Amino acid sequence: MPEETHEPTSGAPGHEGGPSRRGFLTEALALGGAAGVGIAAEATAGETAAAAKPTAAPVNPRLFSFVGGSRGGWSVVSAKAVVGDPLPAIERLEIVSGAVPALPEGAPWVLRGVTSNERYVVRAEKDALVKRQAALGRPECALAALIPIRKNAKWWALTQEERRAIFEDKSKHIAIGMKYLPAIARRLHHCRDLAGAEPFDFITLFDYAKDQASAFDDLLAALRASEEWKYVDREVDIRLTRA
Amino acid sequence: MPEETHEPTSGAPGHEGGPSRRGFLTEALALGGAAGVGIAAEATAGETAAAAKPTAAPVNPRLFSFVGGSRGGWSVVSAKAVVGDPLPAIERLEIVSGAVPALPEGAPWVLRGVTSNERYVVRAEKDALVKRQAALGRPECALAALIPIRKNAKWWALTQEERRAIFEDKSKHIAIGMKYLPAIARRLHHCRDLAGAEPFDFITLFDYAKDQASAFDDLLAALRASEEWKYVDREVDIRLTRA
Repeated sequence: MPEETHEPTSGAPGHEGGPSRRGFLTEALALGGAAGVGIAAEATAGETAAAAKPTAAPVNPRLFSFVGGSRGGWSVVSAKAVVGDPLPAIERLEIVSGAVPALPEGAPWVLRGVTSNERYVVRAEKDALVKRQAALGRPECALAALIPIRKNAKWWALTQEERRAIFEDKSKHIAIGMKYLPAIARRLHHCRDLAGAEPFDFITLFDYAKDQASAFDDLLAALRASEEWKYVDREVDIRLTRA
Repeated sequence: MPEETHEPTSGAPGHEGGPSRRGFLTEALALGGAAGVGIAAEATAGETAAAAKPTAAPVNPRLFSFVGGSRGGWSVVSAKAVVGDPLPAIERLEIVSGAVPALPEGAPWVLRGVTSNERYVVRAEKDALVKRQAALGRPECALAALIPIRKNAKWWALTQEERRAIFEDKSKHIAIGMKYLPAIARRLHHCRDLAGAEPFDFITLFDYAKDQASAFDDLLAALRASEEWKYVDREVDIRLTRA
């Protein structure tokens, strides 16, 4: 579970062929910019075709919404609070690329996060990860896990290099995750700096084939035994299978 | 203009006495959690008093909104695009701690950002900054500047340590900013990882006394001449005076 290895500009699942940032700004313009990003100077001819959804506010193209309820492409196999409070029980998870304006019927919760630039990997690690990691969504990946976590105030008061020292030098987060690549794919989403009050700091979505289920448990056990995990004050582990 | 020295948990202007993260989650609950964070397990007795605004969605307590229009506590003295496209002209700026649900009458734009953990300072720098920096809002600070910037894709594709090397080792961003402390106060807001499509990555708000105006110009000139600023592909410089 290397936490910070997402490639925002290349090969990110859910991004391929998606609208560009500029396209979204143009969409904001087409929608009248009510959300405050409709800045006329952003628009150029030929981009307005990107705007199509008349009701949607312009969203960050890196935003994902995870809707816990009674519908969606993933059935819940198990859900447990590893640390801290649980989430209300659900039957299905729907993974949406983009925003969900309101809680759908029968859905007790929505979690949101954005993929972002890496915070911890150094160049050699990044290059190795880019070479080895797989995108989510391979057909053989019948199992998935959604693991939202929150880190405590002590973690966030550390400086960058102090966090890196715990994350990798002491906890081997990147090295542990690397061992399971490319079999276990994952995408990290950041929630802490969203405008809403979010209950978690990170959401990681994993997928893998059935024969990797015990390897996945090993990966999580290694991370949860690490120094880094002493700073995790809430973690929910939701296991999923294709509905 | 040390970019990453905001203390989210102590002494941040606009935060004093503000509701805690937990308080906001409770507010979400009180409001029915329509925005997806109303998770019952978050609530504890005695916290519900924090919820008071019946129409507001639960917001990140670190969120600020900058409303450009015809009202607000700051009058625009000048506004120019330093790099890239300008923002539509405004007369006044209103600085709101929290969210603005829609564009107010006569306001062509709203920019948003959240204060966050530091990304670049090392421990000695952080300790020195905490000791020297002042909070925004001192009575003698009659002047202010709002400077939103965006960095290009090349910047965001760098690793953390590559960004740090440019930010400080080559550009002396922290050291330059330190020279002007405590006379020039500033607060950095992050926009890149919001759920909306935001036109800038960062917004920095500065304030200072009138006799510091030329020092402030010197500070900006030094930063704009740096290696780091080669990655800035949009920058708007809005100078303000108390209305």
